Amino acid sequence: MSSPPAIRAGRLQDRLAAFAAIGATAKNGVNRQALTAGDRQARRLLAELGSARGFAVSQDAAANLFLRREGRDPSLPPLLLGSHLDTQPTGGRFDGALGVLAALEVLEALADAGVETPRAVEVVAWTNEEGSRFSPGCFGSRAFAAGRIDPAWENALSLDGERLGDELAATLAALTEAAMRPLGGTIAGYLELHIEQGPVLEREEIAVGAVTGIQGTRWLEIAIAGAAAHAGTTPSSFRRDPMVAAAASLHDLYGNVMPRDENARLTVGRLRAEPGSINAVPERVIFSVDIRHPDPARLDAIEAHVRRTCAHAAAAAGCRSEASILFDMPPLTFPDAMVALVEDAATRQGFSVRRMVSGAFHDALFVARVAPAAMIFVPCRDGISHNEAEDVEPRHAAAGAATLLECALAAA
Amino acid sequence: MSSPPAIRAGRLQDRLAAFAAIGATAKNGVNRQALTAGDRQARRLLAELGSARGFAVSQDAAANLFLRREGRDPSLPPLLLGSHLDTQPTGGRFDGALGVLAALEVLEALADAGVETPRAVEVVAWTNEEGSRFSPGCFGSRAFAAGRIDPAWENALSLDGERLGDELAATLAALTEAAMRPLGGTIAGYLELHIEQGPVLEREEIAVGAVTGIQGTRWLEIAIAGAAAHAGTTPSSFRRDPMVAAAASLHDLYGNVMPRDENARLTVGRLRAEPGSINAVPERVIFSVDIRHPDPARLDAIEAHVRRTCAHAAAAAGCRSEASILFDMPPLTFPDAMVALVEDAATRQGFSVRRMVSGAFHDALFVARVAPAAMIFVPCRDGISHNEAEDVEPRHAAAGAATLLECALAAA
Repeated sequence: MSSPPAIRAGRLQDRLAAFAAIGATAKNGVNRQALTAGDRQARRLLAELGSARGFAVSQDAAANLFLRREGRDPSLPPLLLGSHLDTQPTGGRFDGALGVLAALEVLEALADAGVETPRAVEVVAWTNEEGSRFSPGCFGSRAFAAGRIDPAWENALSLDGERLGDELAATLAALTEAAMRPLGGTIAGYLELHIEQGPVLEREEIAVGAVTGIQGTRWLEIAIAGAAAHAGTTPSSFRRDPMVAAAASLHDLYGNVMPRDENARLTVGRLRAEPGSINAVPERVIFSVDIRHPDPARLDAIEAHVRRTCAHAAAAAGCRSEASILFDMPPLTFPDAMVALVEDAATRQGFSVRRMVSGAFHDALFVARVAPAAMIFVPCRDGISHNEAEDVEPRHAAAGAATLLECALAAA
Repeated sequence: MSSPPAIRAGRLQDRLAAFAAIGATAKNGVNRQALTAGDRQARRLLAELGSARGFAVSQDAAANLFLRREGRDPSLPPLLLGSHLDTQPTGGRFDGALGVLAALEVLEALADAGVETPRAVEVVAWTNEEGSRFSPGCFGSRAFAAGRIDPAWENALSLDGERLGDELAATLAALTEAAMRPLGGTIAGYLELHIEQGPVLEREEIAVGAVTGIQGTRWLEIAIAGAAAHAGTTPSSFRRDPMVAAAASLHDLYGNVMPRDENARLTVGRLRAEPGSINAVPERVIFSVDIRHPDPARLDAIEAHVRRTCAHAAAAAGCRSEASILFDMPPLTFPDAMVALVEDAATRQGFSVRRMVSGAFHDALFVARVAPAAMIFVPCRDGISHNEAEDVEPRHAAAGAATLLECALAAA
């Protein structure tokens, strides 16, 4: 009888290094944006690694790439494990790649041990998760969940003037040895390992995060209109200064939203004053407010609080405030059984684990629309991501992969 | 015996209309920037109006233009009355022109009445007060006070690619009938009528402002550095958010500087967050602080308060604050005897009058370095200036001119 399946940490590190070399930057990062030559090269390498182990290679119309290890009953829906291979323009070596290569490691560990799973297990590399070359992101997982490609997305243009539809066709054509499969289809479940992209696990020295859901995100734009006036000649009582209202609004929001709700996030990353003269009271101040919360009712309540606060502060300064919604993505909660699957798997493997909400989007957000899904987080150094300095300790990469394997054994 | 001298309000209005036609814009404003063809045309008209009344026309190397009505003793230093004829690109009909044409009206009123003054009275039109075509502004009055033209200024280039030195020579050459006079020289005093460019006189329904001085101006740039972070994944306690520090700083400054000192002005007209992503905690927030005060000690105290407030708020948010001075113009106080001269003149003429500080620069700021100077303000509609909508009621223009005449009679 064969020994129980186990991931091989050294092999995983070798694979991470091999993929990091494709699109490597001078600063030890990776520039391998979606549907570029580098992305095609990474897909080819993944396909070759899969073929070499006898896994069936296929791709769908969205260029999602699959490696399948057949199960005892090929008619059962497969268990899907994966993430993405594309990166930000100045991306790191782990965001996405870790999830795909840990999934491959799981398949190889099963094959090494000769384990026969009841259902097939598939590795997936979703197309264009980052959305930095072609908007929107999570293109592949959205298309998979919808069973179709939104025609509008095919006409998305990159900054270098390429059309997504054209680059997609070229990417598919570059991997002719992969069988074409229908877009979408029934799956038993989806598991995605990903770096946390935040500081919590590292600071709490916890090896594994069992992700309970992905918080909702809403972007507001607040425009406060006052009256331009000469900085030297206009006394305080004659001013209608929108910067006074903006400062009062933000000071109030920073003091009340996050401090009173540990699950709330409120960020003002963009602010401008018009016309922007040093020696003039501005006419308008416009700023963004990014609010996030796992609970949709709280998201609504925070939005209402932001609108009310800005309106009151504007009125007090003799100004008018208008709010508009730029973006709205509702929260997602993973099924509790799937979260417990991750938690139990980590615990059985002897890793410290905590439940946590994902602050960022992931392909799992969309796959969860069509199947039970879960995510496993591992710590990344200083919480840094979308950055060439992104780094993950080998022991944490291995712990994540081992947890993923344990989950796959339980779910497949 | 002749009747006492009196200004003729209709003549002043006709002159204002004639000059407003030179560089008139579609929106009833004026575009007559320094040393342009329009500026030359306005100088020519002023010279012709002066010559027609027998006033001696002269200009100096800075193209300051003078009309002289001789006094009983030509060896006495003259009294100078004036302002400027150049405008902002989208300027109004009164900023500058009112002061020059009211001074001409004073000379004509003296001539009409056949009054012989002990000393000569001169009208002056200073060159390039606005500084919008060639920086810095107050070119002519600075040169007059210094007795020389700063060589660096001659090489100033306009946005249309012209060099100040060349445009100055062409402007001088265009008025060959004006005698050349030395730059600078001894004068008995200087009086300048100007629109307030602020709302105080209008709102308080006061006809004349006796300007006690020109407040000091200091521009600070505050840069608060924190750490960029993902808006979704970074909990509040892990953030070092410079926008939090900026909001706290500004809220504190708005609540404490102007409300506690009616002579203080504090304006934040420019603010930016870097990198300016909606979904990222900014790395840096940079903003300007324009502070003004008539008292240099208070200006220093306010600067120190701004630096302290920003440093404390930055530290509280885990950030660092740096302040630098972009511009510093010390306050000027006109001699009390000159302020009283204006106040008494207005009162004798039956006009309501209040002492007030000028929030903006004027040529008087520089002429005051070499002679006793004073300024007379009149109300402008809604405090609007540097704007094509700039407007002054005829009765207020006449009241300003009558006050200027009364001052000239007392001082000449």
